Amino acid sequence: MKLATYQDSSRDGQLVVVSRDLSQAHYATGIASRLQQVLDDWSFLAPQLADLSAELNAGRARHAFPFEPARCLAPLPRAFQWAEVQTGAQAATRATPPLVQGAGDALLGPYDALRLPGDDLDIDFEAGLAVIAGDLRQGATPAQALDAVRLVMLSSSAVLRQPAEAERAAGLAPMRSRPGTAFSPVAATPDELDGAWQDGRVQLTLQCSLNGRRLGLCEAGAGMAWHFGELLAYLAGTRHVRAGSIVGSGALDGVDAARGQASIAARRAAEVAATGQPVTGYLRFGDAVRVEMKNRAGHSVFGAIDQEIAPLA
Amino acid sequence: MKLATYQDSSRDGQLVVVSRDLSQAHYATGIASRLQQVLDDWSFLAPQLADLSAELNAGRARHAFPFEPARCLAPLPRAFQWAEVQTGAQAATRATPPLVQGAGDALLGPYDALRLPGDDLDIDFEAGLAVIAGDLRQGATPAQALDAVRLVMLSSSAVLRQPAEAERAAGLAPMRSRPGTAFSPVAATPDELDGAWQDGRVQLTLQCSLNGRRLGLCEAGAGMAWHFGELLAYLAGTRHVRAGSIVGSGALDGVDAARGQASIAARRAAEVAATGQPVTGYLRFGDAVRVEMKNRAGHSVFGAIDQEIAPLA
Repeated sequence: MKLATYQDSSRDGQLVVVSRDLSQAHYATGIASRLQQVLDDWSFLAPQLADLSAELNAGRARHAFPFEPARCLAPLPRAFQWAEVQTGAQAATRATPPLVQGAGDALLGPYDALRLPGDDLDIDFEAGLAVIAGDLRQGATPAQALDAVRLVMLSSSAVLRQPAEAERAAGLAPMRSRPGTAFSPVAATPDELDGAWQDGRVQLTLQCSLNGRRLGLCEAGAGMAWHFGELLAYLAGTRHVRAGSIVGSGALDGVDAARGQASIAARRAAEVAATGQPVTGYLRFGDAVRVEMKNRAGHSVFGAIDQEIAPLA
Repeated sequence: MKLATYQDSSRDGQLVVVSRDLSQAHYATGIASRLQQVLDDWSFLAPQLADLSAELNAGRARHAFPFEPARCLAPLPRAFQWAEVQTGAQAATRATPPLVQGAGDALLGPYDALRLPGDDLDIDFEAGLAVIAGDLRQGATPAQALDAVRLVMLSSSAVLRQPAEAERAAGLAPMRSRPGTAFSPVAATPDELDGAWQDGRVQLTLQCSLNGRRLGLCEAGAGMAWHFGELLAYLAGTRHVRAGSIVGSGALDGVDAARGQASIAARRAAEVAATGQPVTGYLRFGDAVRVEMKNRAGHSVFGAIDQEIAPLA
């Protein structure tokens, strides 16, 4: 099934079930109002949502309405854990997955602008995949962790390269350099990926563009050095991981530089490698990043993240 | 007012109001069931809780019962943001507060054991203070951030020194080295500190002991290089901080080595400085850490954290 969260007057929004083709939606009212409720009680509530999803896909849901991605918050607008693979780390080979914890109190919706007081801090993005997990016991294996994957979605984390460099130089954890992460309108259970969910990786192409121009067609499967089971098992290495924790792949910059990248920093590095000079500039106010993933039939799986960079209101 | 969360069958527990002297409690039912609800709607709900608190303190609350700290979860059992000052950083002088994000999905109650598969990873704790904030806009000043402080409590973060050293050496953010943080039974509004809340610091003594023997009497005010307004404003440097975010001081190891420390690592460092040899060992299964803070009249302000180190069940 596919789930989304519509904005309402509350902080957590209203849970909706979305049809496979993203054309129709239906409030999950009567089953659950918020996604965290479902994650807290998955074995009881998810089958009920799956039934509603089947009705919706069959065109039999009574109160269906056209799905509008612009009304979406992040599928999980607030998360009790949000950890992501560090910048550039998917490309590296290391002994342990270099994950970093982020703040889950203000996750951005797919069309929320990234608002900053200035645009002179080398604003970048890192596009990838993220999964929402169920409960996972301490010491779980990667295979056990894969069983705890509940939902898959797209993510795009803003990264301010100047503060990031300053934090790194000072030996500090990322903090001011990561102002926010946007998520796709829809989160999908792995079975909605039509076989493209394989051993904790998604064997589809992540499409990233900048102001309507293609930045990258990145193979999401080959782009992940560690699969999601390995990432989650790492999080659970010394503690229980509780339902609703999100883990992200970080930038899926891809394995074929000729097909582009999922971040400007990687694009610039490729440009330097090719010509000795970076060409692509960092993001400025008015720029827009778009991230999407299509299935093998060419249909958008999660809807698109479409984020503008804008001045603080 | 003083608030606590009683364990029940839910993940977030039941909110209770606790009397100033920690002797009596009263369910907040009818006002709010969970602390996050109150934080989300503070200006509407907090005055109602304050009224109940006044009734309770006056002995007029109808359904009061004896307060049992052993029934408490963390005041906020799950938090959408949990950031803490890095190990040893309060003692250092730096340009920026070295905060690190943690996972908020499984905060520990005051009597929850810290459970690990083995006790050979140099298990330590870092005792300090933490505040729960309300909404704070991006770019807020330290003074504005102080106005967003809703509640104050004690914290004790477990730190595994061997993985911490490995993470540091590999340039990784803290992850497996920080298996969990315990909080005091009670969170108190700053006005409950009888004037000891001064400019974002608490001018009281943090008492830390190990298996009933004193480890430190640490001045919490002098021990903080940055006050809570500065820490919160740093978090809000490039993003909005949303209600329910927790920020911790990290180990308040104190300014007077003769009066002891709030972590074993700092104790060992003091021992090495004094005699050339560390004497105090890291924690082993069966060891217990106790953290408490008394007001000027000698009464416990938040109740005690009393945490045993135990094997994974």
